[in-house]
Order: sequence, then C-alpha cells, then structure tokens
Amino acid sequence: MTHKRNIYLKMKPLKEARNIMFDAFLPGLEVGCETIAVTDAAGRVLAKPVFAALSAPHFNAAAMDGIAVAAEKTYGAGETTPKRLVPGKDAFFVNTGHAMPEGTNAVIMIEDVHVKDDESIIIEAPAFPWQYVRRIGEDIVATQLLFPRFHTLTPACIGALITAGVSAVSVIRKPRILVIPTGSELINEIPAAPDTLAPGRVIESNSHMLSAMITQCGAECLRHPIIRDDSALIRDALKNAASGSFDMVLVIGGSSAGSEDFARKAIDETGKVLVHGVTIMPGKPVVIGAIDKTPVFGIPGYPVSAFIAFEQFVRPLIYAAMHKKEPEGKNISVTLPRKVPSRLGIEEFLRVKIAKVENQFIANPLPRGAGTITSITEADGIVRIDANTEGIAAGDSISARLLRDIRDIENTIMAVGSHDNSIDILADMLREKSQTYRLSSSHVGSMGGLMAVKKGICHMAGTHLLDTTNGTYNISYIKRHLPDTRVRLVRLAEREQGLIVAKSNPKKIGGIRDLARPGVTFINRQKGSGTRILFDYHLKRAGISPSDITGYGDEEFTHMAVAVAVLGGNADAGMGIFAAARALGLDFIPVAKESYDLLIPERFFDFPPIRTLLEIIGSDDFIQRVSSLGGYHMEKAGKTIWRNS
Amino acid sequence: MTHKRNIYLKMKPLKEARNIMFDAFLPGLEVGCETIAVTDAAGRVLAKPVFAALSAPHFNAAAMDGIAVAAEKTYGAGETTPKRLVPGKDAFFVNTGHAMPEGTNAVIMIEDVHVKDDESIIIEAPAFPWQYVRRIGEDIVATQLLFPRFHTLTPACIGALITAGVSAVSVIRKPRILVIPTGSELINEIPAAPDTLAPGRVIESNSHMLSAMITQCGAECLRHPIIRDDSALIRDALKNAASGSFDMVLVIGGSSAGSEDFARKAIDETGKVLVHGVTIMPGKPVVIGAIDKTPVFGIPGYPVSAFIAFEQFVRPLIYAAMHKKEPEGKNISVTLPRKVPSRLGIEEFLRVKIAKVENQFIANPLPRGAGTITSITEADGIVRIDANTEGIAAGDSISARLLRDIRDIENTIMAVGSHDNSIDILADMLREKSQTYRLSSSHVGSMGGLMAVKKGICHMAGTHLLDTTNGTYNISYIKRHLPDTRVRLVRLAEREQGLIVAKSNPKKIGGIRDLARPGVTFINRQKGSGTRILFDYHLKRAGISPSDITGYGDEEFTHMAVAVAVLGGNADAGMGIFAAARALGLDFIPVAKESYDLLIPERFFDFPPIRTLLEIIGSDDFIQRVSSLGGYHMEKAGKTIWRNS
Repeated sequence: MTHKRNIYLKMKPLKEARNIMFDAFLPGLEVGCETIAVTDAAGRVLAKPVFAALSAPHFNAAAMDGIAVAAEKTYGAGETTPKRLVPGKDAFFVNTGHAMPEGTNAVIMIEDVHVKDDESIIIEAPAFPWQYVRRIGEDIVATQLLFPRFHTLTPACIGALITAGVSAVSVIRKPRILVIPTGSELINEIPAAPDTLAPGRVIESNSHMLSAMITQCGAECLRHPIIRDDSALIRDALKNAASGSFDMVLVIGGSSAGSEDFARKAIDETGKVLVHGVTIMPGKPVVIGAIDKTPVFGIPGYPVSAFIAFEQFVRPLIYAAMHKKEPEGKNISVTLPRKVPSRLGIEEFLRVKIAKVENQFIANPLPRGAGTITSITEADGIVRIDANTEGIAAGDSISARLLRDIRDIENTIMAVGSHDNSIDILADMLREKSQTYRLSSSHVGSMGGLMAVKKGICHMAGTHLLDTTNGTYNISYIKRHLPDTRVRLVRLAEREQGLIVAKSNPKKIGGIRDLARPGVTFINRQKGSGTRILFDYHLKRAGISPSDITGYGDEEFTHMAVAVAVLGGNADAGMGIFAAARALGLDFIPVAKESYDLLIPERFFDFPPIRTLLEIIGSDDFIQRVSSLGGYHMEKAGKTIWRNS
Repeated sequence: MTHKRNIYLKMKPLKEARNIMFDAFLPGLEVGCETIAVTDAAGRVLAKPVFAALSAPHFNAAAMDGIAVAAEKTYGAGETTPKRLVPGKDAFFVNTGHAMPEGTNAVIMIEDVHVKDDESIIIEAPAFPWQYVRRIGEDIVATQLLFPRFHTLTPACIGALITAGVSAVSVIRKPRILVIPTGSELINEIPAAPDTLAPGRVIESNSHMLSAMITQCGAECLRHPIIRDDSALIRDALKNAASGSFDMVLVIGGSSAGSEDFARKAIDETGKVLVHGVTIMPGKPVVIGAIDKTPVFGIPGYPVSAFIAFEQFVRPLIYAAMHKKEPEGKNISVTLPRKVPSRLGIEEFLRVKIAKVENQFIANPLPRGAGTITSITEADGIVRIDANTEGIAAGDSISARLLRDIRDIENTIMAVGSHDNSIDILADMLREKSQTYRLSSSHVGSMGGLMAVKKGICHMAGTHLLDTTNGTYNISYIKRHLPDTRVRLVRLAEREQGLIVAKSNPKKIGGIRDLARPGVTFINRQKGSGTRILFDYHLKRAGISPSDITGYGDEEFTHMAVAVAVLGGNADAGMGIFAAARALGLDFIPVAKESYDLLIPERFFDFPPIRTLLEIIGSDDFIQRVSSLGGYHMEKAGKTIWRNS
C-alpha cells in the first residue's frame, strides 16, 4: 500500500504565483452587473456612472423662516426710512424648506420684520436678491455626474441618489463562489454528544470559515456537500460548477497530503493547473487553476493553510472581480523576544500574540503548525518572515499585520509564565468588567515567566516555584533571578497538585511510588515549570530515580494537556492540578498544596488593565468562580505576599 | 402667522452632550442575547464565554504518510543494524490525519522505510515517541476557554468553534432601531417622472441613509412610515416604539426649523429631554432624550446634520450596546490652501476634498451648508474646527478624519479651475481605465485655477482665459501670472459659448444686445471665470454697460448652475456652453468658439494618474463621448499647445 507521493515540481514564490493568477484572469474576470433598488445599494459598486434625474433643491426654497419678497421692492428700506409690505401681495410668510412664491427672490428673517397688522409688515433694511434662498440646483444639478462607475456607494450616497431622483442603480453583481469540501475523513455535523466522535473522523469546518471570509468580502458563497477522496467525483463536481453560474470554485483538500492531490488531479483533468505549490508556510500546497475561464483553487486542508491561501490568492481576486479595493491591513513594528529560526526559501506567515509592554510592542510567536486553528484565533498579528532569511533574531524589530484592533492590543495584559485554570476565568471577567481590557497568556512555565519579567517582555507572570530547601514559594527564586527589578508578588490562589489518573483509577495508583511500577506510563511537565520542580521534589523524597519512570521524558506544557494525555490513554498518570482532572472527569490523587502567585513589576501597577485585574482578583465573584473549579483555597486571593522595594 | 421660534436654551458642547448621553444609558443599555448557529455567527459578539466541547485533535493523529509503530519496538535500528517490522503487527500504514492504531505512538515517514514484501518492512533508524503524531488536544483541549464573553467572532473563530464541537453560541442580539421620518413636505417615493415633483415637496431620503448607517454598524433598522408635522401623531408613534421591542428610536425632523421642534416636544411629552442643541455645526439641533429607558434621538432634517448627529451620538451608543469597539477612523494631517473662518463657540465639521500634491495632502473645503448632501458624498475627509478658534488660517496644517481609502486619495488628480462638462466624462473614464485613479475637481473659475497652480495646491487647472487684446487663449495669462513655474498647456477641447435661454426662447433673445432689454433678467458667472471675461468682452464690443443688464450682479459658479437658473425661471438668459443648454433641453444662441485647455505643471507629467489622464484625452472613445455632448470641437484634444520650458 505505498502511496504515490505528490511532488511539487515547480513550486513558485508567492509574488510570482500571484502574478500568474492575475495575468490569467485579469482583465476579463467580469462577474456582470445587476440593477437593484438604491435603498439596497449601500456597500455595492456601481457598474455604470450615475447622473442626477432631479436637481436638489428642485425648486427655489426658503432657507429661513420669515417672509418671501421680491428684493427690488425692498430697496431703500432703512431704520429711518422703514418700508411697508402688504402680506399676500408684497410679502409671503414662509418656513424653511417652503417653495418660494412666484415673483419672490429673497427671504427676510422673521426676527427682522415687524408684523403690524394683517395689512402691514414693516421692514427696516433691504433684502438682496437670493438672500436666505436655497436656489434650484444649489446641491445637485439634474443631468450632472453623481458618481463615476466603480464607485462604492456609502450610506450618504444612498441619500444623495434618492435626493437626485434616482431609484435604481446598476451595480456589479456579487461574485458567486462555490466551496467544495473534500476528504473521506470528514463529517458534516457535530454529533449531539461531541465526545462520541470516532477517532479518525473530523468535523468539516474549513468550508464554514471560508464561507464567512467570502461573505466578509461582499461575495456570495455556496457550500457543496462533502465529497469523499475520489478524483472522478471531484472532477464531476468541478465540471458542473464551471459550466454553471459560479465565478470561482474552491476545492478544499482533506487534511492528508494525499487528499490535496485529488483536487490537483481533478483540476488537471477538467481544466488547467497554473500553479501547484507556493513557497509559503502555511499554505504551500495551494493549487491555482482554470476551467475554461473560471478560476479554480485547490485549498489545502489544514485550517491555517486554508486561511493563508484564501488571504493571499482568493481574496485579492474576489476584490478585483468586484472592482473594489481590498481593505488594507494595519501594520505595526513589533519586537520578538526570542529567536525564530525559519527555512531559507520559504516565506513564513508567523502568527503572534502582541501586547504593548511599556513602549514596545512585544510579539510572542504562537504554535507554527498549519493544523493549529487557535494560532489564528489567538493571533493579534501576522509577521511575514522573508524567504531570503533564516529567521529572526531575538530582539529584532519586524513589521506585523494586525488581526485585532490596535486599541485592544494597547490594553492587553501580557501574562507569560505558568498556567492555571483560574487565568481563563480572569480573562473572561476582565473582559466582562472593562470590555476594553484583555488578558493574553503564554504558557512557558514559572521559570520562563520569571525570565520574561526580567527581560521586560510581559506585564506579569504566574509562578509557583517551590524552594525545596525550606518549603517556601517563589520569593527565593525572585531574589536570586530578579535582584534589580522592583516587583510585587500577589497571591492568586493556593491549589492542590496531585496525580491525574484515569476515571476510577484502573491502574490503582495510590501515590508517587506507584509511578515506578512496571506497566505504568507517566506524562511529565516541561523543565522549568513549577509543577516539574514540585514533582521532582516529591520523587526525590520518595527515593525514586527518574529513569525508573516510563514516560518521564515526555513533556506537556499545561495542566490541561496532561489531563488530556491521561484521558486519551497516552499516559496513565501525570502531575497537575485538581481543576484539570475534574474538568475532564478524571480521578485525582492529592500530593501537595502549593502557592500560585502573580509576579508583577511595580511599574505596571499604574497600567489601568492591571489595576482592574487586581480588583477582580479580590472580588467575591472571582473567588467564588475559582472555588467552584475545586481544589482551590482562596483566603489570600489578591493580597500582596511580598515586595522587594 | 408668526411662528413660535425654537430656542436652544441650554446648548451643550459636544463632549458634555456625549457624557450626558453615556451617563444616562450606560451601563444598563442591554439589548439581550440570542442563541444562533455557529455557522451564522461571524461578526457577532459573544454574550457568554465559550468552552470547547471536544479536543482537537480528539484522537492521536498521524501527521505524515507512513507507518505507525510503537517507538520502543524500533529502538536499536540503524544503517548497519536494520530492523524488520511486520505489517499489521508491528507497523500499520497510515496517511496524514488517520487515527493512530492502538498501541502505536510514532510515525515513520514512508520515504524512510523499505517495504520489502507483504511480511516485511525494513527500517534503518529508530523512532522517538510521538514523532509525527498530532497528539490529542494539541490544538484545543476539551473544556478549555475558547473565547471570553464580548469577543467578536471572526471567520477563523467559526472554524475553531466547529472543530471544538460547538454548534451554537449565545451572542448579543442585534440592536433594533426604529427610524421615524417626519415632515409634512416629505413624500415616500420617487415619482416615475422625477421632474414632475411639485415645488415644496421633498423625497424622503434621510431615513434610508440612516438605515444604511445602522446596518453598517451591525444593528437592525425598521423604517416607520412618514409622519406629518403633528406633535400628537409623533408622540403616539414614540409611545408605541418605546413600549415595543426597539432598543433605540430616531425621529428625523423635516428640513424646516419648525419641524425639528415637533420631535423635541413629542419626546418632552412622552419621556425626558436630556440634551437639546449641541454647539456643533452641522448637527446643532440634535435632541437626546429617554422614554423610560429607551434612548430617543431627535435627528435634524438637513442631511449633513443628520449624518453628523448619527456619527457623534447614535453610532457610539449602538456600538456600546453591542459591547463592540467603534471602528477607529484614520486621520491624516492636511493643509488648507485658503483661510476658513469659523464661529467662535461652535465646533464645525468641515467636509474637504483631499489630494496629495507632491508631498502634501491638500484639503479643499466643500460647501459648508447642512443641506448639501454632496458635501458628504464628495468629501474625502472631515476636518474638525475647534470651538475655541475663529477658524483656520491659509497654509495651516490640521488633522482630517478620512472618509475614503488613503490609497484612493494618493492616486487622486486634484483639478482646480474652470468647469467643463467633459471633466465629468474624464472622471468616469479615468475610473473605468485604472480603477485606482480618481479625478477630483473644484470649480473656482479659470483665474482661480491659475492661482492654484501657482500655489502648488493642485495638479492641473482647466482654463479658457481670452486675451481680449489679441483673441488668444490662456498663454498670455500664464506668462503674466506664472513666470516661474514650468508648465504645459494641453488642449482639452474647443467649445461653443453662447446664451442659454428657455426652451423655444420665449423672450426672443437673439444675441448679447437683447440682454439690455427691459423685462429680460440675466444670470452671470463669477468674476475670474473665463466665461465672465468672454461675456464682458462681448458686452464691451456691443457697447453695452453692465448696469444696463438686470441680474448682472447675480453670479453662479458653473455652466450647469447657469442653465438650471434659466430652467427654473430665475433668469431668462445666461452665458454658458452648448452642452449645458442641451443637457437641460434649453435653447442656445451661439456667441463664440473658445479654447478650453488644461494647465499642468511639468513636474506632474511623472504622476501616473496624470499620464493615464492624458492617454484618455487623446483616445477616440473620449473624443466621441465629448463630441456627443454637442458644441465641442475635438481636433486638437490631447495636444500640447504651449510650454514655457
């Protein structure tokens, strides 16, 4: 059952691939036009220039409340030479907006006239012609060009068109895009009980993400039913689509390398492959082709690849077809706190979390795999690493395209350090309380957090570092590693650490000693994490060597990841907090109670999001929500435990 | 019939009025939430935090095509010590994405194995545990917080939610806004023949503009039928709306000062007026009130006032109700080429056209009246003139909020000078040809155009200045006024100027001499315009004094405005081009043929939009379209007539 590998014989650089695409389809990619009511036309692009059918105003209109007069009849009026006008003959009462009566060409404000009786109005100053009159055509002249073709109509344009007597306009039709998900592993619907989903089966999600992206462009998306990995079926669907009424077709591969090849083959057999493979990451396996004149894209099945391929190819082509400018992203200069190596010859789209720490935008890279959808949803920006470099050095500045409002980024607390489930609750409550503040956390363990504080690349660090010489937490580590930084240590919680084991504890694990038993597999935490230190401490106390424990070398980065490893049967036990075991319905054997604190530099106590965060930590609501997770002791939550200043 | 004037006793500055509004409605302006399918949720705001129902991957998945093995069974394999694995027992063929078979924890790439026969697979290197395996929960861990409340869902979020087994989410309901147009002058529909619309009647357009603005915010708009100026009717509508299911109500006044007062009264009688009148222009008469807890706005009837009032008050409140950040506009620094006086104590929102002339963004003020909807549709930006100043001096730099993409502004040709109908055609064709270039023109007459070129505040000027001493056009003026600027003069057209008179020429005007006849009213062009110079020249030749002509002092700024004045009966004759007369079906008595040229500084011949413009002027298509207007001679279109370098 060896498998014919799909080789990208002629991978193209991004720019060249885009040029091939534009040259193949532009000009000529015309989606046509349609006539719609002006009231439905906001955001649409005019297919033809529009001319005014009516002037505005279309009559001479009083621009003040007062009397309408013929200016020449008022000449000579003055304080010492008042003039009498006869209502209904020389003068006519008008309100703003009224049509000027026949024979009049000026308005005198009501404040400036003296209505003596029904027969006499006295004025003491002359009017000049067209005073306080909005003349015909002052705003819009019938027949004038209102908007040229390819103008995007704004809400104000709608007002102007109606005012100019235009009730319908010819606009560019919305491009119709067919999205075809393929892959034998895919299923259409989320099962009623999601955890009953069979291994190997994947809920199809890419078409829905792409559909939302298409809709955001202003185009229309139709989703084809899932097609299993079968070239003939995909080929038939492509033929139908290209001969039908679609302006573009996207075939999404499954997540296997093989399934992408089905799309390429099907395009090759029904039309022409223009590009197969682009030197970008993620997004490398993208296919660009044409069936007759219809652009067809083979979109890679990994979600981040699909996202990047859409952004780099499909979206620009959709906008071009609509004669509309693709919205420009905002770019800022960010600093990467650590080295990011990158493959020469590949342009990488690195997703990063960004926060403003003092006056610098610090960008923390997210997982780089193309299968990690959260690396997009968590990302505040995307850094492009040039194909001609081998990566970015620590401390380098580089441009990041923002995926999030800069104001959100400026109000983000960057937490780097140990993970605790109460951090998620903090993130939610911070958002609830302030709506403009955010908590963004990177989980690199307690020691990593201390180092991040030292380097000034985060606002705070969660830490639970046990000093094994005296049983205290954190303080001795801070004294040793951050002697020169003025910091405060704020208690978040005390919490129970222990062994997370499968439900009903089938391996009958009673404590640390049982981990050395044959047939018991352990899953460890990474070096530098507080939990690792705690575990090693208890291991030593029990007189067990790491080499006695199967799986000691396998590391996860969070409590939840450890719990998942146990749940999935990858390991029989792992060290973690009670809340993680409880969240997944696992059993828990307590080992120790420990202190989990937040290390915050003094200079950030002025940062409003930090102030709000501290208020939340001290609140009854927070204490209650964390307590309900189980395994927490919140007596000192929010208290300053120690400061070095 | 005097009219009770509406006095703004307690006008508030903008900032104070906004604070009063926010204090009255926030917090507490909750529009509630609704549960919707994840696939419909892009762009919506979460009402509750969302947690993962499923891990991703939810099974250990092969990350490469190859064989799945138990790593420990491969230990010891090497080039000199190959190991044999038995398919179906020690090794299992997998493709990327497949579930790892029971008992396996690593994948060896297909390229790295030798499939000897059905019974033997040979490997020459060991696998380490979890190599090429995407472990359960690597991306998402079941129960983890995916997104906190008030998070705005992006397309990628939709993908992540589906992947995490979440099929429905609780989101903030779209705010429902009722818009009530009022005004006895308003009609609902554009008549089939727009020009049959009776004087004094106005097609209601503000509700449609506001509806589009509301929809753009992500809220829902319902339009109430037009209510005539009657406090009781408006009051009843308000009562119904506030007791119904609406989250906000906007009552739009008619365009008369009086009709706005109906809204204020109705709010006063049914609820509470919080603010009546704000020291801004346009938008001064805005009313902010509350009926029970429902925000009610009295929106001024002039379209620009309605636009500004919506932007400054309604929109921020809608976004607050949605727990969403109001999009931030882009601001740039612009230079005003001429002085703009402004009233002390009033904050003005000045609409400007902007173009980048060399390295400066030049902002030309548009008409300042609140009734001029085109001052919004034509505007590239809005300059806020502080209440504490008496205006902006010529040459001052000031911040402008952009209403248009900066890339459009950077590719805009700013034309300042005389107007010709062919300029509209140029604008449309430029857009058709390039899609990224724009032509923006300000009509200040030929002399104004020369001065603008001299000051360096435009890219080109349309000019038709007759040298009455020798019958030549433009060159002598340029020599005199621009001796130091290197320029070229490019012929746009020769065109016929004459007297525009009513259809069938009821006053039997045969030529210039008839303008001095009693009973004949003239409409003139502004001083400094080429047409004025031409007219004055022919007047002098005919031996007529300006004082003999009724209406000589009344000035319009464009040919079309003159034609409209004649069409509306404001004047019997005016000097203008044939195309203007023909556009409105008026009669035309030829007086002279003149040259209309474009004056372009040499340094702009490198500016790509200018290059494209010149190509268009020389094209058959342009010549044909202009010729079809009538009265044009295009023999030399696009030719350089003269240059001073």
